[in-house]
Amino acid sequence: MGLLVQKFGGSSLATPERVLRAAGRAVARFDAGDQVVVVCSAQGDWTDRLIGLAEEIHAQPSARELDMLKAVGEQMSIALMAIAIHKLGYEAISLTGPQAGIRTDSFHGKAKIRTIDTGRLRRELDGGQIVIVAGFQGVDSEDNITTIGRGGSDPTAVALAAALGAERCDIFTDVDGVYTADPRIVPDARWIRRMDYDELLELASLGARVMQSRAVELAKRFNVPFRVRSSFNESEGTLVTDLAGEIEYVDVRAAALDADQAKITIRHVPDRPGTAATIFSEIARATVNVDMIVQNVSEQGRTDVSFTVGKADLSRALSVAEELAGRLGAANVESDENVAKLSVIGIGMRSHSGVAERMFRALAAEKINIQMISTSEIKISCVIEAAGAEQALLAVHRAFELDKDESERS
Amino acid sequence: MGLLVQKFGGSSLATPERVLRAAGRAVARFDAGDQVVVVCSAQGDWTDRLIGLAEEIHAQPSARELDMLKAVGEQMSIALMAIAIHKLGYEAISLTGPQAGIRTDSFHGKAKIRTIDTGRLRRELDGGQIVIVAGFQGVDSEDNITTIGRGGSDPTAVALAAALGAERCDIFTDVDGVYTADPRIVPDARWIRRMDYDELLELASLGARVMQSRAVELAKRFNVPFRVRSSFNESEGTLVTDLAGEIEYVDVRAAALDADQAKITIRHVPDRPGTAATIFSEIARATVNVDMIVQNVSEQGRTDVSFTVGKADLSRALSVAEELAGRLGAANVESDENVAKLSVIGIGMRSHSGVAERMFRALAAEKINIQMISTSEIKISCVIEAAGAEQALLAVHRAFELDKDESERS
Repeated sequence: MGLLVQKFGGSSLATPERVLRAAGRAVARFDAGDQVVVVCSAQGDWTDRLIGLAEEIHAQPSARELDMLKAVGEQMSIALMAIAIHKLGYEAISLTGPQAGIRTDSFHGKAKIRTIDTGRLRRELDGGQIVIVAGFQGVDSEDNITTIGRGGSDPTAVALAAALGAERCDIFTDVDGVYTADPRIVPDARWIRRMDYDELLELASLGARVMQSRAVELAKRFNVPFRVRSSFNESEGTLVTDLAGEIEYVDVRAAALDADQAKITIRHVPDRPGTAATIFSEIARATVNVDMIVQNVSEQGRTDVSFTVGKADLSRALSVAEELAGRLGAANVESDENVAKLSVIGIGMRSHSGVAERMFRALAAEKINIQMISTSEIKISCVIEAAGAEQALLAVHRAFELDKDESERS
Repeated sequence: MGLLVQKFGGSSLATPERVLRAAGRAVARFDAGDQVVVVCSAQGDWTDRLIGLAEEIHAQPSARELDMLKAVGEQMSIALMAIAIHKLGYEAISLTGPQAGIRTDSFHGKAKIRTIDTGRLRRELDGGQIVIVAGFQGVDSEDNITTIGRGGSDPTAVALAAALGAERCDIFTDVDGVYTADPRIVPDARWIRRMDYDELLELASLGARVMQSRAVELAKRFNVPFRVRSSFNESEGTLVTDLAGEIEYVDVRAAALDADQAKITIRHVPDRPGTAATIFSEIARATVNVDMIVQNVSEQGRTDVSFTVGKADLSRALSVAEELAGRLGAANVESDENVAKLSVIGIGMRSHSGVAERMFRALAAEKINIQMISTSEIKISCVIEAAGAEQALLAVHRAFELDKDESERS
């Protein structure tokens, strides 16, 4: 007998029919002999509706009271889910975050889970109940209700799976799993059966909206394997787990395109120690998030510093860069909004060589000029012109045979 | 510096404007130097909406899960109330029933308050906060959320006032207070400034929909004076308190008419010990609520037993009565739906004589026949024909000079 955590997102619970459908999934696992913990998000757009009610009264409601209000959304979901499971003829009990022993720090709206006291959870599971837990919420040491912020209920599900030593966590959502590339751009994109935590983390940072990185980091830290799968069909989804120990794996797991990029270059910056620190601390102070940074070796004591930011931050970043250029004695500042970032990721790169070369060759064959390159241990990113970016993604996807099953790649 | 509990019902909180208006009342008392505890019901029809959500999934949702769901309504209200008080520039903190230390038994949907641990309440009050508490809810010894059933948030407010030793409890509602009679029937009805707990209890049992008796009973038991007053104007409402110790008081405080009555008479019942017990235990078993019972001295070993029931229960009560009449050897069963119950109440009756006579004379002057009479220490009720009932109420109201200020009555 195993223990399984199932998490259902807001769209998976948006109507009575969907709640009953999700209940059916819990019951199926229970019938298969597992102990089952179900973690629920707020239904549909309830969280936003609740925030709207507060904002009708006060433009900036206090974080503590907003947490009190938002926690209501998940509390509704868990009661309805328990009632749905009863309807199917099974025993179930709902627990709020506080009742489930989820203890957090006191940073309202963005609390972090500190500990989970699993006493009651265990007792109810051992008593034969399917246990429904409210995601997204906990209680601080002063008995105040908190919400755990970014990532919604996913971190709750993973943390519960870790605390209970669950066999697996199933994250039910509105996508079939993770794909080798965005299927809206790449019709041949394939669903990925298995991938490593680190690969999904890189994908999340590349703008793939599958899961926020916080839950994935938690899963990695406590080695909780999880599936990302659809509520709306029987696809088994993508299993995310620790693959680093496997003997052989593909070099590239997926490719991603991030069109929300803008490039800034400060030309002929005097190459002195501390210059980069000055530039990027000033830019951070303007609360601009810098993504890629490239600085090449200097020539005649001067160098070009390029970096990318989100398009929305461009004008703010530019004005800082121009002020800096003057102060540092650089030549000038250039910027370009018509760029995109194309990346390939895969833990196989750690041992396989030649991945970068293969990517560059694929781009060259399409006559696509590479403007910036940045690599990590398991990722290569290139900034290219926006106009040809989708064509470039198709070419790279093909070059790594991502349209084929992993076993059939050369 | 006193301590005041203010309770706001659902209609008093139905819109953002009303929440802000209620917040204004709390703030005004705080400015006057009081510590203030605010008890909130669910906004508008939220409780019914939440029950509706459950019933879309299951016709008979479990009581525990329904409590989990219903508790959400008050939790929304308290967060919004705290946010509204912040908006007015004051400090406030909201507490759910469990957080406020309200411990109940485990009868979900109709739990009773067992104890209130006022530790946190005191701490927040002494820290200068206006404290907002969710009505209608508590927590049982197993950390399950309960709702305390009948009477909504009024019992919560009174129990908190008792536990905190509050000076007074203000029950804000959509009526101006208690009147000497229903103003829709009696245009000259006057608002009552002060009345005794027992008088309001009798009125509640007579169908006056001011407050349910549970909160009044609690207030009487712990001697918590409270005002019933309107959220929508500055009327000071009706102060309900212990008046039994006063030297002089009026004989009759108010008159009430209950049109939802039907009369059943079992004729010529053999007058043996245990007959009445048989009749009324059989009727109770049919879950019919019997109101008045009249049995006169017997004649030739037989007596007539009359009683009244709510109109909705008449057919059920009749079939039980007819079966009983046959079994007991009674003559026959008669019933009449066209009746109403006219009552006068007042703790003054305990010492004043002649109240009954004055009432009967007033009815006689209007040529109204009295079909049944029942009296308690502080109440006289007459069953009369429905057709003349409103006219009878006007006559009795006038006879006791209820249209005059108490000080001006003869």
